[in-house]
Amino acid sequence: MANGVEHGLSDLSLSNTTVKDDVEEDVVNPWNVSTKSATGIDYGKLIKRFGSSKVDEELIARFEKVTGKRAHHLLRRGVFFSHRDMHTILNHYEQGKPFFLYTGRGPSSESMHVGHLISFIFTKWLQDVFNVPLVIQMTDDEKCLWKDITLEEANRLAYENAKDIIACGFDKEKTFIFSDLDFIGQCPEFYRNMVRIQKCVTFNQVKGIFGFGDSDVIGKISFPSIQAAPSFSTSFPFIFNKAKVPCLIPCGIDQDPYFRMTRDVAPRLGLPKPALIHCSFFPALQGAQTKMSASDQNTSIFLTDTQKQIKNKINKYAFSGGQATVEEHRRLGGNCDVDISYQYLTFFLEDDEKLEQIRKDYTSGELLTGELKKELIGILQSLIATHQERRAKVTEDVIKEFTTPRKLKFNF
Amino acid sequence: MANGVEHGLSDLSLSNTTVKDDVEEDVVNPWNVSTKSATGIDYGKLIKRFGSSKVDEELIARFEKVTGKRAHHLLRRGVFFSHRDMHTILNHYEQGKPFFLYTGRGPSSESMHVGHLISFIFTKWLQDVFNVPLVIQMTDDEKCLWKDITLEEANRLAYENAKDIIACGFDKEKTFIFSDLDFIGQCPEFYRNMVRIQKCVTFNQVKGIFGFGDSDVIGKISFPSIQAAPSFSTSFPFIFNKAKVPCLIPCGIDQDPYFRMTRDVAPRLGLPKPALIHCSFFPALQGAQTKMSASDQNTSIFLTDTQKQIKNKINKYAFSGGQATVEEHRRLGGNCDVDISYQYLTFFLEDDEKLEQIRKDYTSGELLTGELKKELIGILQSLIATHQERRAKVTEDVIKEFTTPRKLKFNF
Repeated sequence: MANGVEHGLSDLSLSNTTVKDDVEEDVVNPWNVSTKSATGIDYGKLIKRFGSSKVDEELIARFEKVTGKRAHHLLRRGVFFSHRDMHTILNHYEQGKPFFLYTGRGPSSESMHVGHLISFIFTKWLQDVFNVPLVIQMTDDEKCLWKDITLEEANRLAYENAKDIIACGFDKEKTFIFSDLDFIGQCPEFYRNMVRIQKCVTFNQVKGIFGFGDSDVIGKISFPSIQAAPSFSTSFPFIFNKAKVPCLIPCGIDQDPYFRMTRDVAPRLGLPKPALIHCSFFPALQGAQTKMSASDQNTSIFLTDTQKQIKNKINKYAFSGGQATVEEHRRLGGNCDVDISYQYLTFFLEDDEKLEQIRKDYTSGELLTGELKKELIGILQSLIATHQERRAKVTEDVIKEFTTPRKLKFNF
Repeated sequence: MANGVEHGLSDLSLSNTTVKDDVEEDVVNPWNVSTKSATGIDYGKLIKRFGSSKVDEELIARFEKVTGKRAHHLLRRGVFFSHRDMHTILNHYEQGKPFFLYTGRGPSSESMHVGHLISFIFTKWLQDVFNVPLVIQMTDDEKCLWKDITLEEANRLAYENAKDIIACGFDKEKTFIFSDLDFIGQCPEFYRNMVRIQKCVTFNQVKGIFGFGDSDVIGKISFPSIQAAPSFSTSFPFIFNKAKVPCLIPCGIDQDPYFRMTRDVAPRLGLPKPALIHCSFFPALQGAQTKMSASDQNTSIFLTDTQKQIKNKINKYAFSGGQATVEEHRRLGGNCDVDISYQYLTFFLEDDEKLEQIRKDYTSGELLTGELKKELIGILQSLIATHQERRAKVTEDVIKEFTTPRKLKFNF
């Protein structure tokens, strides 16, 4: 194994994130994220446990130097907080060599919430500043294997979700979106890479990495190869020909186990390891300890919410770091570290100065919870209105364009 | 589970054929067949252990009645000795309803031997007498997962072997041959059936059925779904549209575990269970206890052998049931039960009367081993010469025709 120590699978199995080493440890894996802390997951600890690197000032400065653009607020504010090999990708880019972006979504529900947009908003920014191809995998096969839904339903949801993704503004000449259930049966090279990966990974290894057990269905056991395959440009010959192009994956930190596995396998296949940039979790309205759930529409703001629903939900459910009475609030001030409305603003309010002013004013008690919420309501109402408008324009023809395997606007 | 008792997976795990219940028990599974008996595998015991049914006089008579044709000598002589649901298929055919045939080959070597032809010769006969579609799966993905060969090499061997299969005389308007590595990436419905099957089978179950362990690669663990998928007509929409057409699988008895699993899954997918007709094993020249091996060219007659090689190998290696000297042979006679030349004649000499005469004469000692061998040499030299002639005519265009997903000469 070319890369035995740092990312070796034997090492990976030790970092099985479903096994907690003490009672209070955060749980972070592709199927479960939970914490007992009101301030949410301890990301510092997670970086240590996963063996990734912190997105630090130096990396952000390099981003800005290399691209000549100001770093995105999601990067500056530590929403994308962890990475693997980001410097390698920036070196590569500096040398004028190509790379590509890969991200994805598991379409388990029709209703995506604003938190789901974060990764796509950032990915679009990456696509814009680096001018690179992007592939987006809709893992409808995974959802069918894990959830009690039919293939047909999972596939339908993939295309519903694809509309929301397209509405984020991706360039159709640079972006390929695919459903596994449709695409794997259209691309022999993708299936071949699946088999190559499946030949390198044992049941013991996926047991260690993902916590699979003997009573899991065989589809789950081999699925990691399917999420791994798009990390390799050779899975998309119509875009890359036979070029071995490095890949950068913006994704939630919960998806990291898939790519630790992929990075281990890559050198054995003579292919470049994918680089990663990891996103933190978007909290539920009720606070970081509550699980967001598509079946409880009150846990987040959904992309289908009306203007009135947005207002009501935030006013009613957004966990407040403010005090019980106006008088107390003026005296003691609010706590931004646990206040969900403030947290949401760090994701969606682009203006740094305004955000800093809000933080100061809320902390001092000058700004009341109702005023803070009003700010967030306005921003989300506008964001969702724009999104719904754009989504309405995503016709079947547009979807077809994005999802047809084809050459993109790049030569390889 | 709709069919819990007879073919339930819990039941299947008990029949794991890699676990021997006594030291002398024959081993029969897709990767290993061995016996300690000079007369070969005990097929009666195997039928009991696998829970299949014997091909008896009644079934053979029904074959003849239903088709109006004399039963094939491989059926009459018990080479195809075991079945599942053959009567259901014959009932179906009598009612004028369609079915289809499915068989396959794992292309692990360039050199197929005469034993490999048996199943294809019989399958061609079935296709001719029933006039039904036939699909032939080349499991190049399996071979890459199990053997130390690359995908490219396994795929090349698939097409080399396909030439030998085509040379058996299949009707190109009724036959679709496919390599997994090429076809799965051309047919979303096939991949969808793979996922449907993968959702119904746990690791525990494949462990019980196939003896997989924790250190097996995940590709092996999910492979049974790939061999199962062609049992369902919905995997081939270009042939069957959406019709749910029953399937008959002629195959070696060692492949039965795959289809026991498939038969268990079928009702849960609302699809018909495949019927099976099982072939016994073709013995090595050295006798039933020797393993035939592509790496030892002296263990069988290969389709690439010259006329001279055929003669020399049979004279030199074919295990004889005759006596040590001519005098003794004349006095005691030969033993057809262990004589490999005689065994081979039961596979390849179509003339029943002639075969019976040889048996009598050899048993009485009237026919000497050299004379018996001469008979076999003549038949195999002629068979192989014809085969090589036909194979030479299988051009790239012909292969392309057979392997292109297309409508066959049947309406569904």
